[in-house]
Amino acid sequence: MTDRYDIAVVGATGAVGTIMLKLLEERGFPVGKLRPLASARSEGRKVVFAGREVKVRELTAGSFDGVDIALFSAGGARSREFGPTAAEAGAVVIDNSSAFRMEPNVPLVVPEVNPDDVKWHEGIIANPNCSTIQMVVPLKAIHDAVGIERVVVTTMQSVSGTGNRAIEELFSQSEAVLESGEVQVGVYPHRIAFNIIPHIESFHDSGYTNEEVKMVQETRKILGAPDLRLTATCTRVPVFNTHCESLNVQTAGPLSAAAARELLAATPGIVVEDDPAAGAYPMPITAQGRDEVFVGRIREDESAENCLNLWIVSDNLRKGAATNAIQIAELLVREGMAG
Amino acid sequence: MTDRYDIAVVGATGAVGTIMLKLLEERGFPVGKLRPLASARSEGRKVVFAGREVKVRELTAGSFDGVDIALFSAGGARSREFGPTAAEAGAVVIDNSSAFRMEPNVPLVVPEVNPDDVKWHEGIIANPNCSTIQMVVPLKAIHDAVGIERVVVTTMQSVSGTGNRAIEELFSQSEAVLESGEVQVGVYPHRIAFNIIPHIESFHDSGYTNEEVKMVQETRKILGAPDLRLTATCTRVPVFNTHCESLNVQTAGPLSAAAARELLAATPGIVVEDDPAAGAYPMPITAQGRDEVFVGRIREDESAENCLNLWIVSDNLRKGAATNAIQIAELLVREGMAG
Repeated sequence: MTDRYDIAVVGATGAVGTIMLKLLEERGFPVGKLRPLASARSEGRKVVFAGREVKVRELTAGSFDGVDIALFSAGGARSREFGPTAAEAGAVVIDNSSAFRMEPNVPLVVPEVNPDDVKWHEGIIANPNCSTIQMVVPLKAIHDAVGIERVVVTTMQSVSGTGNRAIEELFSQSEAVLESGEVQVGVYPHRIAFNIIPHIESFHDSGYTNEEVKMVQETRKILGAPDLRLTATCTRVPVFNTHCESLNVQTAGPLSAAAARELLAATPGIVVEDDPAAGAYPMPITAQGRDEVFVGRIREDESAENCLNLWIVSDNLRKGAATNAIQIAELLVREGMAG
Repeated sequence: MTDRYDIAVVGATGAVGTIMLKLLEERGFPVGKLRPLASARSEGRKVVFAGREVKVRELTAGSFDGVDIALFSAGGARSREFGPTAAEAGAVVIDNSSAFRMEPNVPLVVPEVNPDDVKWHEGIIANPNCSTIQMVVPLKAIHDAVGIERVVVTTMQSVSGTGNRAIEELFSQSEAVLESGEVQVGVYPHRIAFNIIPHIESFHDSGYTNEEVKMVQETRKILGAPDLRLTATCTRVPVFNTHCESLNVQTAGPLSAAAARELLAATPGIVVEDDPAAGAYPMPITAQGRDEVFVGRIREDESAENCLNLWIVSDNLRKGAATNAIQIAELLVREGMAG
């Protein structure tokens, strides 16, 4: 007999929540009772889980009685309001928002990278930012092998990271441009269709966006490398789903492109696609719907000693959000720490 | 009385050739006779110049008699076949292809950067690669002010750089995706609509694409800095026109973000758009149709000493191709070297 766990999914009708439900089923997670939660607006809607319809209930302070694991993906405000309540009610909260990520008593976990950090949770475990998750999986392997001196990253992030409304906006704006119609701007400050917006989240006084700051801070916390040198430029691109990242990584010791290819191919959670002569390199349309991090275009950078260029692509709704959260839940089950 | 110059435009019906004709008119270039040339396929077509229709003629070895300046933008093979012929016939060739760029007796010119290099031409002057041109304008200003140690660049290049067929492909593929229809792949090795392809031109054994190698070699030649350390990752994005570049620039001496902003704003050919709180940063939809290079997101990179991040956007058909070529022609006129 397998133990079964009662699971709450907060934001069950959202872009990430929908995939969380799908993954719980796909991966055969031992779900006992499922409690899909959302704002009052979604009450009465139903989600399909394991072949049956389950009513979505309104998220309230009383939603978490008897829940073993509460998966939150409904934005920072909801997490701040209801996360501690869920933890006090006895659930382990796995939170996809940025609300608690930098709290010293909240582990920030990517299961392939720092699984042991789940052990010191006090009720809340944070799921890192999507753009951070896909980057730290290969960085961890390189860091362990030869040490990392400095990282320069430029991201090209899909609209699904913003949610379903952004997906609809890219769709309708693209139609409008193709039909020479009027483009409506709503979710983003500018048109995203056939454009690139170098702006994700709010700006700090330093000129960096919050997304760029998060990539630095979260990477340091996950790798346990508080002094890691990293700088990020984050952009939004007209792609529905799956983020791309161009990385320049200076290492402490030598690592040839061939050795890096071998190292990364042997790392759980990574698929190396690096046969450019055959047209094989990671792209959104091929990484979409997959749970792994795809790495390609691995090249020695001769402009600096011990330096590599990498191209990293991953489905931001899956590994960048839902898959990573479910992997944390699976880890809790394996460690006997789920509820 | 103003001298007038007889101008041939090779590739007059192409994406760049069309803009060249438009710019000759817009900028009041002293055109005498205009000779639009193209392959036999386009013969009989007409172009409109200064309010009148001009017949497109077939490009042949005899096309250049009496021509003062021959603007080539019809691909490397045509340039190699007819460029030397045009020069022998007495025309100064301004060639937009990569055919002659690295020849030691061919100046590679960006008028804001190395105007004096036109003086040593021997009949052919090369127009640099689009992604190089927009990068070297700000790099030159920084190089002159404090010296450049190393550059890491990631490009996001629009489809217009590939030509009209690629523009049509992005259009028709986008329609197909939005209508859930079948996507036809033709110009690029993979679908470009709502995707990113980290592959521009052929691959070298090093794993770098020819586009990435060109950015290194051409930048060194234009800046007269043969040892400049630079590494590039070039990607194709689903944008119709105008390239974006994310640059990380390590300088030899200190240069604050504020000082860089002031320096670049005072540099001819550059527009600084860097007021993120007001949503002001360069983007394809705002730089499109403009002749300048737009720079924003200027930030001090604290992961290295004396280091800046920059975001550079420019219309690749204009400053990245046609505008730069016409500026070279204007320079030749000013120097009394046109025909």
